[in-house]
Amino acid sequence: MAGSQTALREANRATVLDTIRRYGGLTQVELAAATSLSAATVSSIVRELQGAGAVDVRTTVRNGRRALLVTVLHRTGLVVGVRIGTRHMAMTLADSAQEVLVEQTLPLPHEHRADTSLDRAALLIVELLERVGSSPEELLGIGIGVPAPVDVATGTISVPGILRGWDDVPVGEVMSRRLGVPVFVDNDANLGALAESRLGAARHFQDSVYVRVSHGTGAGVVLGHQLHRGFAGTAGEIGHVQVDASGAVCLCGSRGCLNTVVGVPALIDVLRASRGPLSLRDIVTLASEGDPGCRQVVEDAGATIGGVVAALAISVNPQCVVVGGELAETGETLLAPLREAIRRRVPLNHIAPLEVVGAELGARAEVMGAVLLALEGTTLLTHRVDHPDRDRVPG
Amino acid sequence: MAGSQTALREANRATVLDTIRRYGGLTQVELAAATSLSAATVSSIVRELQGAGAVDVRTTVRNGRRALLVTVLHRTGLVVGVRIGTRHMAMTLADSAQEVLVEQTLPLPHEHRADTSLDRAALLIVELLERVGSSPEELLGIGIGVPAPVDVATGTISVPGILRGWDDVPVGEVMSRRLGVPVFVDNDANLGALAESRLGAARHFQDSVYVRVSHGTGAGVVLGHQLHRGFAGTAGEIGHVQVDASGAVCLCGSRGCLNTVVGVPALIDVLRASRGPLSLRDIVTLASEGDPGCRQVVEDAGATIGGVVAALAISVNPQCVVVGGELAETGETLLAPLREAIRRRVPLNHIAPLEVVGAELGARAEVMGAVLLALEGTTLLTHRVDHPDRDRVPG
Amino acid sequence: MAGSQTALREANRATVLDTIRRYGGLTQVELAAATSLSAATVSSIVRELQGAGAVDVRTTVRNGRRALLVTVLHRTGLVVGVRIGTRHMAMTLADSAQEVLVEQTLPLPHEHRADTSLDRAALLIVELLERVGSSPEELLGIGIGVPAPVDVATGTISVPGILRGWDDVPVGEVMSRRLGVPVFVDNDANLGALAESRLGAARHFQDSVYVRVSHGTGAGVVLGHQLHRGFAGTAGEIGHVQVDASGAVCLCGSRGCLNTVVGVPALIDVLRASRGPLSLRDIVTLASEGDPGCRQVVEDAGATIGGVVAALAISVNPQCVVVGGELAETGETLLAPLREAIRRRVPLNHIAPLEVVGAELGARAEVMGAVLLALEGTTLLTHRVDHPDRDRVPG
Amino acid sequence: MAGSQTALREANRATVLDTIRRYGGLTQVELAAATSLSAATVSSIVRELQGAGAVDVRTTVRNGRRALLVTVLHRTGLVVGVRIGTRHMAMTLADSAQEVLVEQTLPLPHEHRADTSLDRAALLIVELLERVGSSPEELLGIGIGVPAPVDVATGTISVPGILRGWDDVPVGEVMSRRLGVPVFVDNDANLGALAESRLGAARHFQDSVYVRVSHGTGAGVVLGHQLHRGFAGTAGEIGHVQVDASGAVCLCGSRGCLNTVVGVPALIDVLRASRGPLSLRDIVTLASEGDPGCRQVVEDAGATIGGVVAALAISVNPQCVVVGGELAETGETLLAPLREAIRRRVPLNHIAPLEVVGAELGARAEVMGAVLLALEGTTLLTHRVDHPDRDRVPG
Repeated sequence: MAGSQTALREANRATVLDTIRRYGGLTQVELAAATSLSAATVSSIVRELQGAGAVDVRTTVRNGRRALLVTVLHRTGLVVGVRIGTRHMAMTLADSAQEVLVEQTLPLPHEHRADTSLDRAALLIVELLERVGSSPEELLGIGIGVPAPVDVATGTISVPGILRGWDDVPVGEVMSRRLGVPVFVDNDANLGALAESRLGAARHFQDSVYVRVSHGTGAGVVLGHQLHRGFAGTAGEIGHVQVDASGAVCLCGSRGCLNTVVGVPALIDVLRASRGPLSLRDIVTLASEGDPGCRQVVEDAGATIGGVVAALAISVNPQCVVVGGELAETGETLLAPLREAIRRRVPLNHIAPLEVVGAELGARAEVMGAVLLALEGTTLLTHRVDHPDRDRVPG
Repeated sequence: MAGSQTALREANRATVLDTIRRYGGLTQVELAAATSLSAATVSSIVRELQGAGAVDVRTTVRNGRRALLVTVLHRTGLVVGVRIGTRHMAMTLADSAQEVLVEQTLPLPHEHRADTSLDRAALLIVELLERVGSSPEELLGIGIGVPAPVDVATGTISVPGILRGWDDVPVGEVMSRRLGVPVFVDNDANLGALAESRLGAARHFQDSVYVRVSHGTGAGVVLGHQLHRGFAGTAGEIGHVQVDASGAVCLCGSRGCLNTVVGVPALIDVLRASRGPLSLRDIVTLASEGDPGCRQVVEDAGATIGGVVAALAISVNPQCVVVGGELAETGETLLAPLREAIRRRVPLNHIAPLEVVGAELGARAEVMGAVLLALEGTTLLTHRVDHPDRDRVPG
Repeated sequence: MAGSQTALREANRATVLDTIRRYGGLTQVELAAATSLSAATVSSIVRELQGAGAVDVRTTVRNGRRALLVTVLHRTGLVVGVRIGTRHMAMTLADSAQEVLVEQTLPLPHEHRADTSLDRAALLIVELLERVGSSPEELLGIGIGVPAPVDVATGTISVPGILRGWDDVPVGEVMSRRLGVPVFVDNDANLGALAESRLGAARHFQDSVYVRVSHGTGAGVVLGHQLHRGFAGTAGEIGHVQVDASGAVCLCGSRGCLNTVVGVPALIDVLRASRGPLSLRDIVTLASEGDPGCRQVVEDAGATIGGVVAALAISVNPQCVVVGGELAETGETLLAPLREAIRRRVPLNHIAPLEVVGAELGARAEVMGAVLLALEGTTLLTHRVDHPDRDRVPG
Repeated sequence: MAGSQTALREANRATVLDTIRRYGGLTQVELAAATSLSAATVSSIVRELQGAGAVDVRTTVRNGRRALLVTVLHRTGLVVGVRIGTRHMAMTLADSAQEVLVEQTLPLPHEHRADTSLDRAALLIVELLERVGSSPEELLGIGIGVPAPVDVATGTISVPGILRGWDDVPVGEVMSRRLGVPVFVDNDANLGALAESRLGAARHFQDSVYVRVSHGTGAGVVLGHQLHRGFAGTAGEIGHVQVDASGAVCLCGSRGCLNTVVGVPALIDVLRASRGPLSLRDIVTLASEGDPGCRQVVEDAGATIGGVVAALAISVNPQCVVVGGELAETGETLLAPLREAIRRRVPLNHIAPLEVVGAELGARAEVMGAVLLALEGTTLLTHRVDHPDRDRVPG
């Protein structure tokens, strides 16, 4: 009985903290409304959290009245992690201890452009800082992930054509000018790799590969606990390895790239005649529910990607391959054939087997990687990224 | 006139030095015989080289008489680099300044075994030390390259079946026990990569890949000026990337590996019906002389290898690919289609083009890499190989 | 002269009979109008047919007046055969001697649903019975063919997704409840096979295969003069044999099924760029008129289908393959490459060649098969379908 | 203690019976020598078996002395089952209750011919009858399985070229003339199917397919508990379904047949470069021991065969696929990818899943099928083979 009361209390505490992170900061009255808990319970939990140093409570004004604003208590120094997707932007505000203060997702228009998207990102950052009761002065830096290879020295996309509307835009510089803090830009798969390597499934391995299977497929390579980006930031861009010599031409200009076969537009095409027009989200849901057509398409994608990852694994001999991205939410449907293809194509060695596992951070991997990137860039965290001579960011 | 006399004298000087290096040490009488120069010319050149600190002259006894033995003057501390091939062993004795004192090649039987080959290597090392007027006491260490992936922590081949007769033999330990010095073992393509990266075509690049095209094809990966071997020492083993899903089974157990298509036995098979049984040496010679069949086979191999190197280049994004190994002696016959395949399949970036060039050290690359490996292991040269925690060598 | 008069008279007699069958029953006045023959000629022919026992003449009332209704004379006991198509329903009322009394076709909406379609079928059956001067009491049973595999034990479609809007509907039970007679349901290709095997091109062979090439392709397998349906009624479903491992996903959930390549939507797609949007009927007409694009598409379909039929023919070794369905109306355009593909892929034997011929019953095969199915089910005709223990029909 | 004595006694009894079956008949002295049991133990066991009606003991003469011959007691009427393989002949003598009296295997020369092989078979039959203390008078009939399609009406191979040296030989007639009893000839996969369907893994299913994966691949189709052979006896000959349109020409004359890809000569070819020349037996052994190359080749064969079996399963919709033949001795190595290929390509139905299981009778399936064939042909057992009008045997 006592146990179940404790469990209930812990669940309520978690609900309150999650709610604060969702909104950044709320008054106790708002917290009660948002969590459906009684004012007394909220008040008691907030007091408890405050005592434990988890939240900060401060006087504010709401609708002309004084109220108590509750925010996650944070260490000095905040950073923002941003992930730019094809149709969404995700943002996380965290402190220097990697404590998440608030998270936010924003839809983006089809074929969005850098200028307007970065404008919206800058406005949202200022708003999030306000919500947690902070201000731009406290912001140390920003990490941004984009679905394209990046020249981290300049914060610019290094291969043209892959993210239309963003070519030749010095993303880091543009954003840095808007908010006056250092901005670090990297490829999204690299950021997922960074996060899984520091906080997730690959944290016990020095050499790992993170494969992100989403609208396109990319990989991040971590060697000796450090991201290996390559000279032009294109390391791990396995979405552009050729798998069909007579296939369709890819955005990058090559022919029959992996992305032309397993990228979401290709999967949608294969399913259109029998399933009608689907989205990536639909495919993930239907495959998870057992629709044989969607399962087959995801399985085939897994096997094809596995063949390409096998070549990458032969090239860099990691200890672990972590598979994330939206399509990985189908679990073993994607993972089993991917793992099997790797098993069959990578020569067995006497030293250590190659593990192939699902990501632990799920949809948050990339945005947490952006947070880590900003923290490492601004506060000289333990782990330094390699090629430091190319890591300068325009101020 | 004066100019041509100077040129002649320089040529003679080079001939004398090369001859000394070929034999290790020679008396002035033997030098005259071996070079076909007059005793007076030899004597004058030796004096000159001695004055420049290039050679050492010392009294010895030949056929019961006193004689002057000329050797390359060396710094304190010698190392031996050894390359084990499928049919040959090459050995170079050098000093701590990477100065080559003597070089030697030895044929090996078909499917030679580790025990007898290492016995022969140990005997030859003692003999070479004698030839240069030195002794085992001066030997600091030995580097050995083998045509298979190596667990450098134990000096053992890490993938079974690839070099028959050498599986499960702790090569480093066995050799170290024979001669009482530390022994460092690595894959031959890794050693070629090390040498080309330090002394050859890739010396101006921090990230490079060395592709060795010989009986089989392998690659060595250099990132941040350091060899990247991977956890089990199999990084760069592109000979085992699948290129034909329904192809022949490879030594490694996978199917349709690159080596099953462009390995020398496969090339010989393709040529047998029209050209009879050829050796790798024959193919190189005939292709260089313009035989259309051999040229075509080498060109096709180049294109196929280029496709696989493209995937490797996408995976690690190096600045430079260096192509060596015996088949690379055909020059552009191999290199042009290999370069073209890479050009077509690696997405263009804004930062820097990927250069694809021939090796500068030629046939000496691997054995010089073995020398460097021994020097770096014993004298803590500037460049340290990565994964130091796995670089311990028994003995 | 006399000959041509006889011929003319016979032609007129056939016209009269066909017209009666088209409408079920007509007065002599209506018959004259419908056939454009004089009242005297009609009267004379009707008298003659009545004398021969072919038609029945009875008093009825039309527009408030007495009139003589002419119908096909039928034996006791009527059955209805129904074929449900993707866009049409065809229906034939026949007597126990397989004599056709009236035929009717009805358009169906795109993606029609079982409930409304079966309602319309029930109403039409009652109407047809009235037209031939009969009533529901005389109805013995109904046979229904659907374009999907059927579990004949329950009269339900056994593979979900293939006929949307009909999944999980106990077709036999629903229909049986409406009209109070036993209803037998089967796959349309099976019914075509039954009809061709009893009355058509395969009637002299004990083992035959009927291939129906229409919106999709399916086959019916007849072994020892009996339909072989398989345990779940899916025997002969060759539209779902894989012909393209990386092809589009099929309604059934597999990938690259024959239907995804030669099904009508696929054919229409292939022709769209050059011919605009066509219907199956257009393709048949254009191919028959010699349009090279349509001919080529039909020929290619024939060759692809032939390859799959070859595997079926190897599996069951029939004596004869009969090809029907709408696309088969193009004759040798479809049949020649289909036959050739079979010839090339089925090993020759010493015993008997495999004959590949066009269907004899044409568009009527399936609906006549439904009539036979109903007759065999209700009157225990000579030939019994196999797996009798699974042939129970509800109701 | 008592239990273990009972177990020991039962084991001894089984050893004695097996030994008798191996030799046909032995004196008690011979039995003791062959089993290494004491004379007393043998004597006691034989008495016990005699009491149980399992063996027959009779006076005979050995080396000029009287001795007691022990044979398996048999019902009246004996039949012989013979399996002709590419390199071996297997023979089983059984009585009308399917009780095995003696089994024998005999090597055959490469490309053996019908006349000499049938001569040897006839001699061996007479010898086996003698060994069990019987005589040709007691022989009712003979069943013979050959690795080629058979016209069972004439006992002749029906597709020329597949079994060289046996074309145009009326096998049944030739053998029948030699021994004066009816002889029934069939394809070996058909006989395996018959045995597994009556006595093995498919005995609870009315419709099943037996796939025999050995030097070549073939299948036997059982529908309604009866073998379906097809008009020319080629039903189930899936080894001749095309899987590679530009593949090698097959013995049957078609191109790229399944057998050209997964037949043993093809597997040996794929393994030769890396594994040296292997036999089918070697491949089975190495794959079972975990050799990755042999495993990969067997797995690939499984997947390829599975694709073809899927088409067969779609064609006839059986409830169960049983996989036998020598390559099936590798267990799940062959079976798992075969099952997976079927799972992915056969549309799911609502009625019953398709089971894919290993054979229960192992290497004995075909020869037991031959015994059953002879018994069914001569003694009108319950199950009759279909197409009785074509089952006449000359004789």
